[in-house]
Amino acid sequence: MTDCQEEGPGNATPMEVFEKLTAQGDKVRALKTEKADKADIDAAVQLLLKLKVDYKTLTGQDYKAGCPPSNSTPTQDNGPSVTEGEDMVDPWNVSTSSAKGVDYDKLIVRFGSSKIDQELVDRIERVTGQKPHQFLRRGIFFSHRDMHQILDAYENKKSFYLYTGRGPSSEAMHVGHLIPFIFTKWLQDVFDIPLVIQLTDDEKYLWKDLSLEECHRYAVENAKDIIACGFDVNKTFIFSDLDYMGMSPGFYRNVVKVQKHVTFNQVKGIFGFTDSDCIGKISFPAIQAAPSFSTSFPQIFNGRKDVQCLIPCAIDQDPYFRMTRDVAPRIGYPKPALLHSTFFPALQGAQTKMSASDPNSSIFLTDTAKQIKNKINKHAFSGGKDTIEEHRKYGGNAEVDVSFMYLTFFLEDDEQLEKIRKDYTSGALLTGELKKCLIETLQPMIMAHQERRKQVTEETVQQFMTPRRLDFNY
Amino acid sequence: MTDCQEEGPGNATPMEVFEKLTAQGDKVRALKTEKADKADIDAAVQLLLKLKVDYKTLTGQDYKAGCPPSNSTPTQDNGPSVTEGEDMVDPWNVSTSSAKGVDYDKLIVRFGSSKIDQELVDRIERVTGQKPHQFLRRGIFFSHRDMHQILDAYENKKSFYLYTGRGPSSEAMHVGHLIPFIFTKWLQDVFDIPLVIQLTDDEKYLWKDLSLEECHRYAVENAKDIIACGFDVNKTFIFSDLDYMGMSPGFYRNVVKVQKHVTFNQVKGIFGFTDSDCIGKISFPAIQAAPSFSTSFPQIFNGRKDVQCLIPCAIDQDPYFRMTRDVAPRIGYPKPALLHSTFFPALQGAQTKMSASDPNSSIFLTDTAKQIKNKINKHAFSGGKDTIEEHRKYGGNAEVDVSFMYLTFFLEDDEQLEKIRKDYTSGALLTGELKKCLIETLQPMIMAHQERRKQVTEETVQQFMTPRRLDFNY
Repeated sequence: MTDCQEEGPGNATPMEVFEKLTAQGDKVRALKTEKADKADIDAAVQLLLKLKVDYKTLTGQDYKAGCPPSNSTPTQDNGPSVTEGEDMVDPWNVSTSSAKGVDYDKLIVRFGSSKIDQELVDRIERVTGQKPHQFLRRGIFFSHRDMHQILDAYENKKSFYLYTGRGPSSEAMHVGHLIPFIFTKWLQDVFDIPLVIQLTDDEKYLWKDLSLEECHRYAVENAKDIIACGFDVNKTFIFSDLDYMGMSPGFYRNVVKVQKHVTFNQVKGIFGFTDSDCIGKISFPAIQAAPSFSTSFPQIFNGRKDVQCLIPCAIDQDPYFRMTRDVAPRIGYPKPALLHSTFFPALQGAQTKMSASDPNSSIFLTDTAKQIKNKINKHAFSGGKDTIEEHRKYGGNAEVDVSFMYLTFFLEDDEQLEKIRKDYTSGALLTGELKKCLIETLQPMIMAHQERRKQVTEETVQQFMTPRRLDFNY
Repeated sequence: MTDCQEEGPGNATPMEVFEKLTAQGDKVRALKTEKADKADIDAAVQLLLKLKVDYKTLTGQDYKAGCPPSNSTPTQDNGPSVTEGEDMVDPWNVSTSSAKGVDYDKLIVRFGSSKIDQELVDRIERVTGQKPHQFLRRGIFFSHRDMHQILDAYENKKSFYLYTGRGPSSEAMHVGHLIPFIFTKWLQDVFDIPLVIQLTDDEKYLWKDLSLEECHRYAVENAKDIIACGFDVNKTFIFSDLDYMGMSPGFYRNVVKVQKHVTFNQVKGIFGFTDSDCIGKISFPAIQAAPSFSTSFPQIFNGRKDVQCLIPCAIDQDPYFRMTRDVAPRIGYPKPALLHSTFFPALQGAQTKMSASDPNSSIFLTDTAKQIKNKINKHAFSGGKDTIEEHRKYGGNAEVDVSFMYLTFFLEDDEQLEKIRKDYTSGALLTGELKKCLIETLQPMIMAHQERRKQVTEETVQQFMTPRRLDFNY
């Protein structure tokens, strides 16, 4: 999977985006005039809308045909006072001007997914008999597609499987990378179902200036961190695309099936590819799509093609699976269901990006207790006031405070979290004290992760990554 | 491999091609103005030139910007009196207005390959100590890339391997399909080297309205006809893409390497793909390219990446390998060398197409002796005169006579062939007598093929198609 949080925004100038927009507008008109396929027109319109968002983000102005951008610098909103702009979210770019982060309710409307409301959270609790994970209770997994259908079937004894993944672009994983895996492990525990984890080393080779060997090595290293999340080897298959493509009688067949049913116009509209992109990038979406179909894993599902798939992932991956869901019925497979998470904020604030090349932008899984403490104290963006006196008087802003955001991810105790929020907002809790809470939450969590990762031998990795039957009867 | 001889020309109207040309002209100008990458400009120019050839073929007129095509019907040259037009050759289309067929000397200039001249034929004889195959002696394999380099290395005890293929679009193979295999078998015999044969069932799935299962079944059925050409199982590996992609640790890695180094602009220029084409077609050229590299077959070459590849194929496949040769040095591999054959003419004449759906357009490998006789007598285009008297007086035209063309492919005896040519040209040999010669050449050849094919069991096919070490030490 691509990792939006490691990529910067495009380097295009306002004029370049303006020109692209003008050309794309012409194209949409031409397609409509010549009564082209609806899918092609839709794809072109999607790209047009995406370019308009880019343009607004870059220039702070709305695009007007025939009016090239002026040289004024874009409006930059840093800090607690926020204005509403259009957020931009695709697998390689996430940008927002709000310190609270992306407006997820708007995203649900834009993507056409459904909100995970209290009713759904309650239903999951009823069906599984387990207290919902904090990521569900707190809206960190906030959007879904077809989750009710998955639960309907599950109640009728029809099983499903889980699929998630990671794009192994470096050895360094940060705590944000753990979110989908922590949640997926919880889902696997409460539903007791098979799990497949795709490591898209081929994608990283295509997108980055890395060799195949490096990408494959990162995949294996990342697998160790994933395994350290506590997955059950009897229920979990982890695979590198570069390896598994050459080991599976089913995977490539599904890749080709998807590739036959998606045009360049469509991926251009969905992902913004251009004619200068390599053909590997252009066809890659089919490779991320294929594990959504149970026939990609004949060793697990015994050739059955009707086992539905549930994909927990960050919302930026949704474009891949919108495409997949569009193709699925045309090739005779069930559509995968989805659970979408919000993004994990950088230490510097929700509108900045985490970057593997900037060690201070997040807490890494290899950080020492001391590094964790120093990073949080020094870099975690604070919603507190400038002086103790002001803070006591006016209180802090938990909504934009990164330490508080991190606690909503990792502090399990709801009551304690609520007390911290109240006390911080009232001014009773100081920024230093809030940071201390986070440090004391993260240090043991990361240390325990490091301990478990040390136990993961090459042999264990080998076991997880060998195509084989799992402990399920299909 | 794609099989140009089964595909019809595009269905575009002159006006559609005119509009495409106009748009492409604009694009080339835009690319030049914005100082785009040279590769992108070259690709766009190539597509422009191709469209101009299409336009000329369709309308008989040269393209003039701003002057849409008139409604006049194109000039059609049928029969012995020929005019020179531009031939069009790509993996899906071959068209010419000449009854002699495509002008191959022009094609060599256009494609930038080298003519197989007498010096090269003599050198192959010297190096191998064998009389050159009739396909070499008679210019049926007429063009090459880097064949001298292959021979230089061979003389220095540096081996190479052979790669050819077939696109299995139906069970029905005709005699023309055997040309590359007959010649490849001869090359394997005289050089004693490994051979890999690719069956592009994935390509046929992407291009045709067929299921994966049908394409795979055609691959296995076609493999039987290929095996019946007499290949040595200890020196030959035949593979279906759909199978081998999921069985090889090296194939997919090379596919991805090629895919990273080819842009959509390039494949658009080379193959004429459009934005409405599926992403499978767009990325397919990498799959036909990958077997040109020895690391795609680690089981045969023991991981060595420096074993050069020689590809005997029909000239219409050259675009794939021009692309491959362009990529090879950038991914650290030797460029494949090539030997190009002319096209095998349809019974109705060299400027018409053979079609698997028209049983009368060629001699099929399943035809009975009687069918062969009837087809040749009834359908083989004749260069003879209308009456015996005229024929005796003026002689026949061997150059456009399909029966004579077929004899140049299949009659081994040079002296006998030359005598037939002379007698036919002088009028001493009548059309019926010439056809009888061909019938007596083809009948035993096809019957013997059918006999050998009957001996090919499912087990034998399985053996050829199992990835394994061959009888060579690498």
